[in-house]
Amino acid sequence: MNPIRIEKSTQLKPKPEQQSLGFGKHFTDHMFLMDYSSDEGWHDARIVPYGPLELDPASMVFHYGQAVFEGLKAYRSVDEQILLFRPDKNAQRINHSSTRISIPPIDEAFFVEALQTLIRVEADWIPSMEGTSLYIRPFIIATEAALGVRSSDHYLFAIILSPGGAYYEEGLKPIRIFVDNHYVRAVQGGTGHAKTPGNYASSLKGQMEAKEQHNCSQVLWLDGIERTYIEEVGSMNVFFKINGEVITPELNGSILEGITRNSVIHLLREWGIHVSERKISIDEIMRASDDGLLEEVFGTGTAAVISPVGGLFWNNRDIVINEGITGACSQKLYDTLTGIQYGKVQDKWGWTVKC
Amino acid sequence: MNPIRIEKSTQLKPKPEQQSLGFGKHFTDHMFLMDYSSDEGWHDARIVPYGPLELDPASMVFHYGQAVFEGLKAYRSVDEQILLFRPDKNAQRINHSSTRISIPPIDEAFFVEALQTLIRVEADWIPSMEGTSLYIRPFIIATEAALGVRSSDHYLFAIILSPGGAYYEEGLKPIRIFVDNHYVRAVQGGTGHAKTPGNYASSLKGQMEAKEQHNCSQVLWLDGIERTYIEEVGSMNVFFKINGEVITPELNGSILEGITRNSVIHLLREWGIHVSERKISIDEIMRASDDGLLEEVFGTGTAAVISPVGGLFWNNRDIVINEGITGACSQKLYDTLTGIQYGKVQDKWGWTVKC
Ligand SMILES: Cc1ncc(COP(=O)(O)O)c(C=O)c1O
Ligand SMILES: Cc1ncc(COP(=O)(O)O)c(C=O)c1O
Repeated sequence: MNPIRIEKSTQLKPKPEQQSLGFGKHFTDHMFLMDYSSDEGWHDARIVPYGPLELDPASMVFHYGQAVFEGLKAYRSVDEQILLFRPDKNAQRINHSSTRISIPPIDEAFFVEALQTLIRVEADWIPSMEGTSLYIRPFIIATEAALGVRSSDHYLFAIILSPGGAYYEEGLKPIRIFVDNHYVRAVQGGTGHAKTPGNYASSLKGQMEAKEQHNCSQVLWLDGIERTYIEEVGSMNVFFKINGEVITPELNGSILEGITRNSVIHLLREWGIHVSERKISIDEIMRASDDGLLEEVFGTGTAAVISPVGGLFWNNRDIVINEGITGACSQKLYDTLTGIQYGKVQDKWGWTVKC
Repeated sequence: MNPIRIEKSTQLKPKPEQQSLGFGKHFTDHMFLMDYSSDEGWHDARIVPYGPLELDPASMVFHYGQAVFEGLKAYRSVDEQILLFRPDKNAQRINHSSTRISIPPIDEAFFVEALQTLIRVEADWIPSMEGTSLYIRPFIIATEAALGVRSSDHYLFAIILSPGGAYYEEGLKPIRIFVDNHYVRAVQGGTGHAKTPGNYASSLKGQMEAKEQHNCSQVLWLDGIERTYIEEVGSMNVFFKINGEVITPELNGSILEGITRNSVIHLLREWGIHVSERKISIDEIMRASDDGLLEEVFGTGTAAVISPVGGLFWNNRDIVINEGITGACSQKLYDTLTGIQYGKVQDKWGWTVKC
């Protein structure tokens, strides 16, 4: 359908040092853009030099937050291919998010094609050092210039790319997390299952207090109704290994369905480990810890892939998990997933897509 | 502190017809801007020609929704003054919102001075026809160009102005509202008490379904925990007159503290009417209606001032309030508040501020 017009930049930026890429700080030479209007639908798909968006100050995104986004990575594989990990899932999820936020959907095959085309143009930007990758941020914003709370008639779909350093420079490193009784990220009936900016705005304050007051790098969110059931950790889904079984909160409408979560459940079941998707309370975790049955806790998400949790701080109780070191299950999941992503482990699941 | 630099536009736009202004469609010739950086704090306050903002596509507002806003009006009074209604309350509220969203506060006196200065520059844009006004939209957005969920280091504070037509062209007109059991606007611990874009994004879908499926112009939101207690109506606070007493939901952390709400409570108490701020359930409303005790329902907000509710649709029950016509209390509040705002009623409360 939409042919993608390509306008190359005449002045390419110098590439940053691979040793000090960090995350989300550098952006490549080009970006993908596509417009929507109620008359024309999605149109004018184009790759153009990366640069500022010119937006009327009345653009609805600034006022009513009508926006959704995605996050995934392109990996330079051991045999010099460029691999994406399950991009079809991101295409599905952006449309799922858009439905909740009243944004028109994008053709899912075209979404993947747009990613691939942009990445081919920017192939030189994909770093090659161990653990590095090219982070991909597709997003949609409401651009109609009008005040009044309603759906916009105009949208912009953009994809930007950012080369990123290794998340773990020296192997997996367990984090300490703060269980928040005070702030709530999302609630059933709300937007927690959608990847929309408002969810993240609401999480900033708790995140900051966890860091400053409790020296915890992430927040574990509890449900907004009973303030008892586990939801997510920061921008990750969360798993608990208790007495040989792995438990993760069920998709209840207030948590995001992570693509890493889905892949982890798949792998664990293949390995013969029992996985339950169900409600799990913070009390149950504390009891398991008291009884010596809490074997591992880890977060899952695109950025860190697997993030082992070495400590939990809740109601002035500080618990240590697996002596604060990375558990075997966390390590194996990390090795397998990154192995698939970098083409070191044969992809018998059909999860990787070449650019 | 911050002197405001003024750069006048050389090409002024033609003013739109006062008969067909509508709401939020036209914008004036200038806007107020001020930048924040963690090094310099708020700086470079300026009034410049209205025009597009140039923002890096990685600007945090697009991704993590870190933004707050306000809404108020300037009125051309009967004696040709320009009046603002309680702008100090908007200054307080934007800082209250900013605190929740981890945005640095603005000096409150300076906030009001910025409004006044911009409005003086744009005085010709304030319409004079009965019921018209100049809508004022101050807002703050996170402008640092970086991905990663955290507070931005850079912000932009902007004020834009839009001349608006009379909300009611032929007297108060009761609306029919849909009581939503499915979607939730906000929950305690979340951001409902802050004026932040994400709250509005989350309300769009329910709003659309209420219109399309139930022919209701607004949604009445129930609490996110028990789905029983009344919260707000669209972008308004809500009041119920039951058997001579007026009841409005208490400020519980998930509803916005409206400035109109505060003024209405003040006036009613002055008039000797008992006002309760407390939890009130949809069942209580239905029972009051069954018992013939539900005398009036009305929303309060800057846009409509008072919006009488003539009908409620809940769980397939359609109830009619006060035979679908505007009640005496709603009418008197509307007349008094608009009277103060347009300088027709003597302001013994000190609510109006001249420009
Ligand atoms: C709130 C939230 N939960 C979970 C995840 C994990 O999702 P994924 O595994 O698709 O990266 C993310 C990150 O995308 C997130 O933002
Ligand atoms: C969610 C919400 N509730 C209530 C109000 C009413 O507030 P105010 O009376 O200050 O306009 C508004 C509008 O500003 C609003 O957006």
